[in-house]
Amino acid sequence: MSRESSNSHFTWPVRVYYEDTDSGGVVYYANYLKFMERARTEYLRSLGYEQDQLAQDYGLIFAVRSVNVDYLSPARFNDALQVTARMIERGRASLVFAQTITRIGEDRSLCTGEVKIACIDRETFRPRPIPREMLTEFIDAE
Amino acid sequence: MSRESSNSHFTWPVRVYYEDTDSGGVVYYANYLKFMERARTEYLRSLGYEQDQLAQDYGLIFAVRSVNVDYLSPARFNDALQVTARMIERGRASLVFAQTITRIGEDRSLCTGEVKIACIDRETFRPRPIPREMLTEFIDAE
Amino acid sequence: MSRESSNSHFTWPVRVYYEDTDSGGVVYYANYLKFMERARTEYLRSLGYEQDQLAQDYGLIFAVRSVNVDYLSPARFNDALQVTARMIERGRASLVFAQTITRIGEDRSLCTGEVKIACIDRETFRPRPIPREMLTEFIDAE
Amino acid sequence: MSRESSNSHFTWPVRVYYEDTDSGGVVYYANYLKFMERARTEYLRSLGYEQDQLAQDYGLIFAVRSVNVDYLSPARFNDALQVTARMIERGRASLVFAQTITRIGEDRSLCTGEVKIACIDRETFRPRPIPREMLTEFIDAE
Repeated sequence: MSRESSNSHFTWPVRVYYEDTDSGGVVYYANYLKFMERARTEYLRSLGYEQDQLAQDYGLIFAVRSVNVDYLSPARFNDALQVTARMIERGRASLVFAQTITRIGEDRSLCTGEVKIACIDRETFRPRPIPREMLTEFIDAE
Repeated sequence: MSRESSNSHFTWPVRVYYEDTDSGGVVYYANYLKFMERARTEYLRSLGYEQDQLAQDYGLIFAVRSVNVDYLSPARFNDALQVTARMIERGRASLVFAQTITRIGEDRSLCTGEVKIACIDRETFRPRPIPREMLTEFIDAE
Repeated sequence: MSRESSNSHFTWPVRVYYEDTDSGGVVYYANYLKFMERARTEYLRSLGYEQDQLAQDYGLIFAVRSVNVDYLSPARFNDALQVTARMIERGRASLVFAQTITRIGEDRSLCTGEVKIACIDRETFRPRPIPREMLTEFIDAE
Repeated sequence: MSRESSNSHFTWPVRVYYEDTDSGGVVYYANYLKFMERARTEYLRSLGYEQDQLAQDYGLIFAVRSVNVDYLSPARFNDALQVTARMIERGRASLVFAQTITRIGEDRSLCTGEVKIACIDRETFRPRPIPREMLTEFIDAE
């Protein structure tokens, strides 16, 4: 498994709606994981990979194996956020993303996370090697 | 399609957690639909029907066709609610439920809804007749 | 209360992520209400109204009073949808929106809804007149 | 901060509904965090603490500072789960919970997590000492 600091910082904008908040007045803690997944999905799309096609053509899906998330400062209703997705590890059948969430125009991270993704068979849920052409593309994207 | 007032008022308790609320300080409007579905699911379970079994054994699932919901008064974080599910129409391939949400120990409805459910094929999503034995059970349950 | 067919069809794009779907393979029925709210929020923003500012400056929030939704055909994972928000009624303290959800590039509605919104005091939750300048703007927007 | 293995394993049942699943056919990864929070909330309730009362009486709320979650095996629609909440660290203004999710009647964990909670002021969001009587109760509960 190669670990390296990619230079490419894929970024995806996320607006905070009522659906994302809780009665504490801030974004509900589980919902940051939704924002992070949107950014990972759009990162794959930016490389040409549609996950419904991957499931249909290869019979594989990407499933989350672990998350480590730090909640540093709360996001609020109506905030305009941006979410990064940076691949920091590539294995034969897994990927690790480092992700940050900030308000657009601010530097301070509100939330940071490391998310490990496994490539699995959509029927058996067993690990499957990531298609070679995808891995190549990931390397080129850096 | 027979329309009649059932006497059986199935009731299911629901606790309001942070996940259900929004930054307005109350339960988020879409989440009442989750509470209503929990009550419908538990009503079917109380009659002996597990929906994963229905999908496996009969290849059918119940899908929502329409909802009419009135939001009368807001539920809040930590409220102990109860949700009713009363079947008010039975068709060959559809059911209509009337549902209310109240705080336990109070009479006033916070939210009322009418929800039409269709019995459909899990693969084709086309309407399928509700199995005769289920319909019989629904009538007996009244 | 004036009822008229507005010509302005505000449209907002929504991508379907895993978070929006359920194990039936389609968008979970409550989540269409989230999509509809996003479009209403962005419609108000397009007229210059930020709802956090409305709460702060006027002490008012918009709350949903009722929804009537028809589910016509399911949206699926990874679909690129568009959601319309068209104001079909304006009252002193309430608004009614007609909304449709379609796949981008298709005509057929997957889901249609009518959503009644009340303007309420953020503290007391009692009805409050919609500020005159907002109403004027709504009329001009047609 | 004292770290010790508590003997008390608080357990809370959770049923998996459609709302919790995604189109991969399993529980959506962010939703396990909801299940874990329900168990923590019910654990506090079992000790006599209602979080809406804590907010009102003391002006404090518990906010999640970090989560480490491992997804070991997927939970599915209609599964009857149980979620544990065990306090493994108590600080002046923070708590750490170890949590597991299993199917009722099975030993194998589907999901495990460590969740750090901070006691904060509900207005300023700044750390606040946990009330002494709560800490005492936590120790007694072990």
